[in-house]
Amino acid sequence: MKDQQSFCEINAIKWEKNQLVLLDQRYLPLKETYYRCESSADVIIAIKEMVVRGAPAIGITAAYGVLLSVINNRAGSYKLFEKNVLSDLEAIAQSRPTAVNLMWAIEVMKSLFLSESENSNLENILYLKAKGIHQADIENNMYMGMLACEMFRKSEAADKKFSVITHCNAGALATGGYGTALGAIRSAWHAGLIDKVYVDETRPWLQGARLTSWELKKDKIPVCLNVDNASGWLMSTKNIKWVIVGADRIAENGDVANKIGTFNLSIIAKYHDVKVMVVAPSNTIDVNTKSGADIEIEMRSESEIRSLQSVEIAPLDVAAINPVFDVTPANLVDVIVTELGVVTKPDVYKIRALFEGECRVSA
Amino acid sequence: MKDQQSFCEINAIKWEKNQLVLLDQRYLPLKETYYRCESSADVIIAIKEMVVRGAPAIGITAAYGVLLSVINNRAGSYKLFEKNVLSDLEAIAQSRPTAVNLMWAIEVMKSLFLSESENSNLENILYLKAKGIHQADIENNMYMGMLACEMFRKSEAADKKFSVITHCNAGALATGGYGTALGAIRSAWHAGLIDKVYVDETRPWLQGARLTSWELKKDKIPVCLNVDNASGWLMSTKNIKWVIVGADRIAENGDVANKIGTFNLSIIAKYHDVKVMVVAPSNTIDVNTKSGADIEIEMRSESEIRSLQSVEIAPLDVAAINPVFDVTPANLVDVIVTELGVVTKPDVYKIRALFEGECRVSA
Repeated sequence: MKDQQSFCEINAIKWEKNQLVLLDQRYLPLKETYYRCESSADVIIAIKEMVVRGAPAIGITAAYGVLLSVINNRAGSYKLFEKNVLSDLEAIAQSRPTAVNLMWAIEVMKSLFLSESENSNLENILYLKAKGIHQADIENNMYMGMLACEMFRKSEAADKKFSVITHCNAGALATGGYGTALGAIRSAWHAGLIDKVYVDETRPWLQGARLTSWELKKDKIPVCLNVDNASGWLMSTKNIKWVIVGADRIAENGDVANKIGTFNLSIIAKYHDVKVMVVAPSNTIDVNTKSGADIEIEMRSESEIRSLQSVEIAPLDVAAINPVFDVTPANLVDVIVTELGVVTKPDVYKIRALFEGECRVSA
Repeated sequence: MKDQQSFCEINAIKWEKNQLVLLDQRYLPLKETYYRCESSADVIIAIKEMVVRGAPAIGITAAYGVLLSVINNRAGSYKLFEKNVLSDLEAIAQSRPTAVNLMWAIEVMKSLFLSESENSNLENILYLKAKGIHQADIENNMYMGMLACEMFRKSEAADKKFSVITHCNAGALATGGYGTALGAIRSAWHAGLIDKVYVDETRPWLQGARLTSWELKKDKIPVCLNVDNASGWLMSTKNIKWVIVGADRIAENGDVANKIGTFNLSIIAKYHDVKVMVVAPSNTIDVNTKSGADIEIEMRSESEIRSLQSVEIAPLDVAAINPVFDVTPANLVDVIVTELGVVTKPDVYKIRALFEGECRVSA
């Protein structure tokens, strides 16, 4: 496992000399600058302003934010200390109220803080916990990468490398490191299975152009950027065998909500007999969501469509529609890879079995 | 016919007081400025610099350019006059050597010039011919619009309006006026058949965002702009019944080369049981091209993918691939509408029959 980590040169979340140092994703790919958090207030700004993005990455950032709060509130009476820390924790939890990982990380750190608050070694205990959450995320990603490689080896000719296409950014930048979809791609590249990664630029936010192509270049994995429109042409002319994407939510029946365009890409893959792999930790699967029809699609501002960064690209007052996610039905998904195991041709029974530990690798 | 023309408020090519006045497409949609050509040299600049674009529009511009040459060379001896005009014509023809309509228009105007060059009414004769080429293009577009409406009436419930989605710009701006795909949409809107037009922004050049949404807004046709990624989500949630696009070349077997992303859109349409209509004048069909496999796909600069206008959106040195067209196989095309008639479920026999006048509307 240790060795695998070196496949990823990106370290977007670092703890250095009592500071949390975040790679500032707002300025990628043109500038690699770091945002230093010295207090929980700095952490709140970093989360709100998208210095850090991606649910797992936000959760890890919040865990370190609890530690910063404790360090900064240490002076003074114990009563005041506890009150101030709990108040900080509440504020961090509010910084992005819909992010489940954020709430979870705050809860874990809070209960540890309360049980150990009189321990003279408190900072170190909290540091080890935050570091543990961070490390577990990376290790889950690396394990999923290994499972993905097993799947590739089973389904592709051993002597022939193949290309893959990915959408959005489900990489080191969106997680504690290594990545989900990009983690699988990193593992497959280092296992000598794939020869090239095509990256959808992913309009409107251009996570593919801005973040994924930057990550892959950084790790010296052969990357080729394309407009989202070119995926059909690419699949019909290049040696693409797999679409590999992350997920924002997976319903109990295996329907996958992910960045807008994932559904398009999956339909085009099916047409070309290219397989679709979704890589996501098991907490992405929401068994309370019965199917994709129950997933509300977030609509964002029309102005994101009419302009690109500062450039106006359409009539200023034209109507536009900006759904941020779409739902890919389970029957277009060939494989879901989680840290609990792999589900092929997902359905409600196989998803339930995954949580009951009945399948490490389901057929 | 006359009445139908008023459906289109856009007049991108005008002849006014011995000047050719072109709507400058380089600055749309943010600025509506006109580029005035007083000489054939001005016309050459307009074509080369993309003041005007779209093969039919370029042909019409060239025809008026011949007239400008004659007006400007009138003084002096007859011999010098003829020599100078023919030299200008050669230069216009070279301004965009691959555009077939351009060559054709120059040839038509040249032979008329040579046969009438001593006629004292020469300018007027040439003006009427250029105007005639321009008008014929508009009338063909309007006729295709009528044929498209017949098709919609046959295939859709009479009492229910439907929505359509289009890609790139095959509108008044790309033709003499009215448009091919957008002509069909204009006709269907005024016939009360459709209720809304979804417009793919069409990366990388954004013809949909920049030009098509501007055209439709101008003509007060309900328009909604979307990223290309959203077409699957739109077809699964909105009342879209038809994809309507133009074509750059149609092979003898009915395979259609058009702007990159047309293939993606057609696959996604088939998945949703949405029909695909291609609207293009018959000279777009190249019977010397047997199938789409024989069509060379133009590749343009990688920098168009890495940047958008002046904004860098990806790592400066990342590899990118920029195919400008793709080929939609005939079996994904439901209807081809030409001014010679309509071909449903196109194949080589029906395409041949179209040129043999056997079908006005083929089944």
